This record gives sequence, structure tokens and C-alpha cells, in this order.
Amino acid sequence: MKKGALAILVHGGSENWSPLRWKDRFDEVCPDRRVLLLPDAPHDPAEVQYAAVWKPRPGDLAAFPNLRVIFNLGAGVDALMADNSLPDVPLVRVAVTDLTARMSEYVALHVLMHHRQEPYLRQSQREKHWSPKSQWAANAISVGVMGLGTLGADSADVLKRLGFRVAGWSRSPRTIDGIECFHGNAGLDPFLRRTDILVCLLPLTDETRHILNRALFTKLNRTSPLGAPVLINAGRGGLQNEADILQCLDDGTLGAASLDVYGTEPLPTDSPFWTHPKVVLTPHNAADTDPDEISKYVAAQIARFEAGGALDNVVDRGRGY
Amino acid sequence: MKKGALAILVHGGSENWSPLRWKDRFDEVCPDRRVLLLPDAPHDPAEVQYAAVWKPRPGDLAAFPNLRVIFNLGAGVDALMADNSLPDVPLVRVAVTDLTARMSEYVALHVLMHHRQEPYLRQSQREKHWSPKSQWAANAISVGVMGLGTLGADSADVLKRLGFRVAGWSRSPRTIDGIECFHGNAGLDPFLRRTDILVCLLPLTDETRHILNRALFTKLNRTSPLGAPVLINAGRGGLQNEADILQCLDDGTLGAASLDVYGTEPLPTDSPFWTHPKVVLTPHNAADTDPDEISKYVAAQIARFEAGGALDNVVDRGRGY
Repeated sequence: MKKGALAILVHGGSENWSPLRWKDRFDEVCPDRRVLLLPDAPHDPAEVQYAAVWKPRPGDLAAFPNLRVIFNLGAGVDALMADNSLPDVPLVRVAVTDLTARMSEYVALHVLMHHRQEPYLRQSQREKHWSPKSQWAANAISVGVMGLGTLGADSADVLKRLGFRVAGWSRSPRTIDGIECFHGNAGLDPFLRRTDILVCLLPLTDETRHILNRALFTKLNRTSPLGAPVLINAGRGGLQNEADILQCLDDGTLGAASLDVYGTEPLPTDSPFWTHPKVVLTPHNAADTDPDEISKYVAAQIARFEAGGALDNVVDRGRGY
Repeated sequence: MKKGALAILVHGGSENWSPLRWKDRFDEVCPDRRVLLLPDAPHDPAEVQYAAVWKPRPGDLAAFPNLRVIFNLGAGVDALMADNSLPDVPLVRVAVTDLTARMSEYVALHVLMHHRQEPYLRQSQREKHWSPKSQWAANAISVGVMGLGTLGADSADVLKRLGFRVAGWSRSPRTIDGIECFHGNAGLDPFLRRTDILVCLLPLTDETRHILNRALFTKLNRTSPLGAPVLINAGRGGLQNEADILQCLDDGTLGAASLDVYGTEPLPTDSPFWTHPKVVLTPHNAADTDPDEISKYVAAQIARFEAGGALDNVVDRGRGY
């Protein structure tokens, strides 16, 4: 008997994430299974046992009466959590080393760019003139990572290797070698007070929506060696209050910001972020993982699940991540 | 009896490296010794037993008949090697962790900037438009570090932690954990052939002058995932043939370059590097170490030397570094 089918439902997407590329990858790693690229592939909803999804429309997944597992093709499951009709089956998020490594590349790059005064140096190059400006060593700069899951923990470790003073903050207590860990509401203020560069990798939940706001920014280190603290958000756009970020950049509460995510994506052309001299933008590509690794990860999990093994990285629906 | 005097001879310098700042630092770490800021401090040349120098003029050091050790206040000793009258006493170069860590910051930043397509992303931000462009993971990119002394070995290790495929090349054989090491003339071509991003941290000697030239660039990976290979030079300006770099950038032999050092410093305002769209310039500040650490390093070496111990990091005058 042919094994249960795998349905692919991918909305949005990019060059790396085109639906056809996913179909091609899954056909290769699941040779003994029907792979349905929806919504177009003719199919019987009852044959679908697995779904590999990225931002499906609310209700899409409720169509499959025999669904056993949903695999989210990225780290953030906030879009799925908003679907009230989401079937009550295990929801697995991606946690492949490729995604983790790419996020750490992004975090190291953007922390180093602000630390080493890249915006100032590029401006100086355009003006053909260097004004002497002293440069702190990394061990004078405190970086704070919000969110200490797989991604945050690895980013913190890379930053430590680069010499920064690294601390982390998470909802529940964590222990990471060489990283000062704060947690919960009580730990937030002392964490912020010591932080010169804030890196946000939190999941988006009801608790974290717009957590990056003026009240939080004013608690960052007011005597930072960098002049004013820096914000780096590679989590979700919904974590940030964008009007507050702009105001805080303009009144000096923040010195600079790197943003990979936005409240509305793609970022509207009339957003003031595009031309703001203190803002470094990237197109939500901080951890744009290759479908190769993710499709292998999903296929391996299905094989283990069908052999009676446990699924990894199952989302806790109560927490929302 | 007062201990032998320490003479400071610093030419050039920067905000971090002003002669007065050096005097202040050495007064603090050598409280039992006369510290002479030359050329102005009145002194008897015979009282000078130690010299702490940065680019002294040829002949300056020959004036001290009782000189015991020369300390170079940076990593590169090429300026001293050009002084035919340099006294035949041990010449010590700086190797402090601060300098090493700062160089690794620079190398990580510039490798990541080219790897993550920063010049393209900044251009896109100015144009308020992202064209989808795929992004390789670090483990698809081969970085080659030329020069595997203290600085090169640490930079290679940081790049490895960031996920790059790292190899190194040095004149004589080296072994570094997790780094593929090539050496000598025979090892150079295979090292270059695999390299997508070339990081040069070589000392400047008669053998290495203008080693970064067209013949070398054409041997780099011609099928690089980056399109064309990238050059990063944070060693010495004398290592590079600047006309070749410009030509190779223009004809596609090189895809981009980060330069911290130049044949003439400061870089003349009429240099085409300033406005070249593929060139990222920095003001020879890759490892602009704080005088605090260096003065302590020199004082500790003098104390150990006077107690009969050996000096660290003595330059081999035959090799020139």
C-alpha cells in the first residue's frame, strides 16, 4: 500500500522558497509517498496524512480529516497560531542547523557592523575623509539576546566567541555556558539596563506583541560606550512598535537599528525606514534556509514517527511556540 | 639606584596612539623607572636601556649605547627592518590578546559583509527595492587566511565557528585544529584554487612585497558561489599591487575588496579606491589596540627580562618578522 500523502501548502515564498522548488525537494526525499502541491494538485483530502506548510490560509488545514502531523517550514509559527480551525495534531517547527547557523551569521554581522561603526565608516568613505574616532574592543560592549531557544542560544555563543559581554533573556529560566541568563518579568529590567546592543529573536505571541516599544528602549544602558543603544530585530515584525522605533531613533533613545522583519511585509515603499540614516534594512532573509535541509528534516521526522518514535520540536500550543 | 630608563619614540600615531597617551600609560605601569618621551625630554642617551617605538626614524635607536631591548608598539616590524643602523639587541613585537581579538572582529565583519551581500543590500535599501537574490550558507563558502601567526590563527578559528570552510597558508608548516593548513610555495596554488574569500594577514618582508597581485588573484576559485572571489587585506599596504587590484575588480577577476591598509597612508584623496563601488575601505583601524594593554605587556616583559627570564615574541631578523 502506498504511504499517506504529504501535502505542500506554501504562500508568499521567495526565490529560495518557491512552491515548485519545495515540490521538487520533497519528491526527492519522499520517493515512496505522494507529494501534493496544493491548491492545484488533484487529490482526495482523506489521503493527506502530513502537511508541510508556510503561512497557509486559515481553514486550509481543516480540510484533511486524516491529518497526522503539520510541519511548519520555518521557525515562527505565529501565522498558524492565528488559525482557529487548526486541526489538533502535533505541529512541528523547523530547527535545522542550517537555519540556526544562518541566523547566527546575521546576528554576528549586524552586531559587528554597529560595534565597528560601519555606517559612519561608509559615510566617511563617501566623503573621502576619516575623522579619528576611537574604537572600543568587543569586551567593552554588552550584547543582550532576547529569546534563548535554539537560535538565540547559538547566536549568544557566537557573540561570546567574538569577545562581547553577552547576556540573554527568556520567559523561563535557561542556563547557557558563559552567558549571563535572565528570565521572566523580574529579570527583564536588569537585563535591559546592562545592554548596549539588543538582539531580539523572540517568538511572536500575545505576550510578546509590540514588546519592542519606547518603554523598553528607555531601559537600555543610558551610558553605553556606543553613545546610545542599538536595536537588532530578526524575530518577527509584530514584536516591534515601528512608530516608537522611529521616534526613539530621532530623539536619541536609540542610536541605530537593524531590522530584518516588519509589521507589513514586504515593507511598504512609503515606510520612513527605507531612507532613515540610522536604519539598516534586510529583506527578511536573516535565516533564509535552503529547502534541501528542511525537506530532509521533515522526511526524517516522518520516518521516525511512522516507526513509533517521538517527534522533535513540537510546538506547545499553550505557550504559542 | 634608579632602574634604566625607557625611551618612547612614536611617529605618526592617531587619537588612540598619541605620544602623550603613551607617556601617561608607561608612567603608570613603570613607576620605578624614568620614562622619556622623545625627542623632547632632556636625557643622557647612556641612561636609556629600553625603547618603546612606533615607526621611529632610521638612526633614532642607534643613539643609545646601552640599549638592551626594543619593543615595537604594534604587530608589524617592517618599518624597523628598513633601519640599517638598528642596534643588534632583541626586538620584541606586540602580541596582546586585545590586538588579536580586534583583528578577528575586523576579519569576521568583512568576511560576513561580502558573504551576506551587504554592498548589494545597502544599494537595494537606497533604491527602496529588493530583488530576490539567493544567499549561500557559510558552509558553502571557502575562506583562505594567508598568515597563520597569532592573528591569522585566531581569525581562522572565529571564521570556523561562523561556519565557513576555512583553510590557511603560511611560509612554514602549521597545524591548527579544524583548519586545513597549506604552506610554502608548493602549497600556495592549491590553497588559492579553493579560496572564495582571501584574507591577508601576512607580515611585510622582501618575500611578501606585492604578493597580492594579478598572478595570484587569477589563481583564486574561478567557480566561486560568490560569482568572483573577494580580497580582504588587513596586513600591510606593501603587500598589495594596487593597480592590479583595481584592474582585477574592473575586469571581474575579483568581485570585491575590503582594504584596511594602503601603499601610501593616509590614502591620498585622489586614489580611485575611495569611490570604487566594489571597494570597502577602513582607516587602518582593523586592530587599533588600546595603549593600556600594550604598556602593561611591555612592563611585564621588562620585569621578567630583568629577573633573568626570556623575552616573548622576539623578531627573527633573518625572516623579518
